[in-house]
Amino acid sequence: MQVKGKHYQAIWLKKEDPRIVQIIDQRALPHEFIVEDLQTLEETARAIKEMHVRGAPLIGGTAAYGMYLALLAMKDLATLDLDLENAAQQLKATRPTAVDLEWAVNEQLKAIKKGKSIEDKTRIALQKAQDICAESVAHCANIGHYGMEIIKSVSQRKNGAPVNILTHCNAGWLACIDHGTATAPMYAAHHAGIPIHVWVDETRPRNQGARLTAWELLEEGVPHTIIADNVGGHLMQHGLVDLVIVGSDRTTVTGDVANKIGTYLKALAAKDNNVPFYVALPSTSFDWNIKDGIKEIPIEQRDAEEVKYIQGLVNGQVEKVLLTPEESPAANYAFDVTPAHLVSGLITERGMCAANEDAILDLFPEKKR
Amino acid sequence: MQVKGKHYQAIWLKKEDPRIVQIIDQRALPHEFIVEDLQTLEETARAIKEMHVRGAPLIGGTAAYGMYLALLAMKDLATLDLDLENAAQQLKATRPTAVDLEWAVNEQLKAIKKGKSIEDKTRIALQKAQDICAESVAHCANIGHYGMEIIKSVSQRKNGAPVNILTHCNAGWLACIDHGTATAPMYAAHHAGIPIHVWVDETRPRNQGARLTAWELLEEGVPHTIIADNVGGHLMQHGLVDLVIVGSDRTTVTGDVANKIGTYLKALAAKDNNVPFYVALPSTSFDWNIKDGIKEIPIEQRDAEEVKYIQGLVNGQVEKVLLTPEESPAANYAFDVTPAHLVSGLITERGMCAANEDAILDLFPEKKR
Repeated sequence: MQVKGKHYQAIWLKKEDPRIVQIIDQRALPHEFIVEDLQTLEETARAIKEMHVRGAPLIGGTAAYGMYLALLAMKDLATLDLDLENAAQQLKATRPTAVDLEWAVNEQLKAIKKGKSIEDKTRIALQKAQDICAESVAHCANIGHYGMEIIKSVSQRKNGAPVNILTHCNAGWLACIDHGTATAPMYAAHHAGIPIHVWVDETRPRNQGARLTAWELLEEGVPHTIIADNVGGHLMQHGLVDLVIVGSDRTTVTGDVANKIGTYLKALAAKDNNVPFYVALPSTSFDWNIKDGIKEIPIEQRDAEEVKYIQGLVNGQVEKVLLTPEESPAANYAFDVTPAHLVSGLITERGMCAANEDAILDLFPEKKR
Repeated sequence: MQVKGKHYQAIWLKKEDPRIVQIIDQRALPHEFIVEDLQTLEETARAIKEMHVRGAPLIGGTAAYGMYLALLAMKDLATLDLDLENAAQQLKATRPTAVDLEWAVNEQLKAIKKGKSIEDKTRIALQKAQDICAESVAHCANIGHYGMEIIKSVSQRKNGAPVNILTHCNAGWLACIDHGTATAPMYAAHHAGIPIHVWVDETRPRNQGARLTAWELLEEGVPHTIIADNVGGHLMQHGLVDLVIVGSDRTTVTGDVANKIGTYLKALAAKDNNVPFYVALPSTSFDWNIKDGIKEIPIEQRDAEEVKYIQGLVNGQVEKVLLTPEESPAANYAFDVTPAHLVSGLITERGMCAANEDAILDLFPEKKR
């Protein structure tokens, strides 16, 4: 998508040196646009763990490149399998909730096995990382295509008045490789000339909505308004939201959705006000092994400092300020689970389906056991 | 309540000069403790509008003192009624949602009428302001008494394990004159030796929870943890909240509750997880004339800058930092309405009642028509 009129994706191989992977350090947005080089497994793991990159599909893509960078440093065929397994474990341990991470690393392990020499395996790993990213882009484009149909039908019902869409966190192109998941239908509608307006949940504590989604929409020219996470329910009570579209970090085969903390509260409000609540996700975000999201999906707890401090721009400098009494403790749960019965539908790369096991498996019959 | 071991209320007459009213400038908390002098009507109106003081009962008490300060400056008996009416309008126009403000100003107008001379009226106005504040303190103490019974019964059920109470915004002593409304039962329980732990919602955009409630609880020695506003639903899904207690800026005679934006979302989550959801309020916060809170209670919209910028401490200085892309618009709705059917009960100075017209009027029979 667009950054100052130039097309970017969220991760790419450096043109001048294919031993370097480049990402956008998303911690600095929207105040600074910083491109960061990743040259090692360790740098990649840190970039994921410390959220230079974030978002389920992008974490998957980055981890896939991480396996390639790990291989670049491996010299000894005798210990290679063990080294690869260690690299895989190191990457998987960075973030526990998103399932794409584990999936992408496992895909790499499978692919790499097929190579004979280290050079061969390295070439395969690079190709696989690029394939995973290309597939993610294609998935997101399809999600945009199918999701746009929903927006189009609301637009027709409203006689072309702007469709008000609420979204939480950043399930935008910055969370993916391109297009985004939740944002893909919005971008598709906007580019098709359907008037939309996006309510952007700030998304405390890391403000991915206020920092990243707002920035994406601004760069792409999509009308939007930032709101505190507390506001969505009030807007829905007053008819100011036509639909909600969010992303997913992990969706059970039964349709429970783990997504950024606070998603569940918006789903409750949508249900209470008959506002359709859609989840946009590539099938890589499904966890085919889990049936009860609330009981079974591990919820990451992050550092309390992320709640107590926040960074922003003052006098042209990005500064971190303390928001709370210094001695007060804080807790930082990163995700919550929205039970399937609150979800109006899932928007996947194969089309829409209801959030239940039968409908999901009808769309992905190869996953039936 | 306690500030560094010394007892404070949230507004008082200056000991050395009874022509000066003193407040705590709450915008600077928790980083700085600033006592501010109010000497004129204009200073008082600005202190309310710009939220040096906030919270329904304290706004009422401050406005009552504002009428006294206005009278201090009036010299002409011929224009006095008009001048008083103008002062009343100026105060009422500062904040539209809380009903205590209008109530307190009207009480003053009624009381002042009884005075013959300007001096007499001024003396009456001072007495009335002090009475309104003293009554508020007594109401809050009673709310604490009745609300503690709820906490005590949960504590007994849990065999003395800490009772986890979630609260939103600051309905603490800083929002009142003393004790607080939602916090009064917590302070009463804590002082009675009942172990409690409070989940403090940050309360964006003005962070009254993270700044004020956390600070109050810290100064009083009550165990607490600050959380982002997004977290409450997740905690309730996992049995980590025993009850919710919030305050109210305006409660309809039918039991609909206007309170800080985001309260409605917590009430939905409480309902979905069978967590009792209580609203603590003095009867001055009832609006006896309104039956449909969502349709009839005006919801204040404040400056978008409050969403886009936040202030915090960096290098010992309080700085305001920009959180969002500078060009992105933001909306700032200050309150929402929780419909009565989501409220488990109202805790008033006369005791508990259900959130419906019959139960409310049974407790306040003098309001029956």
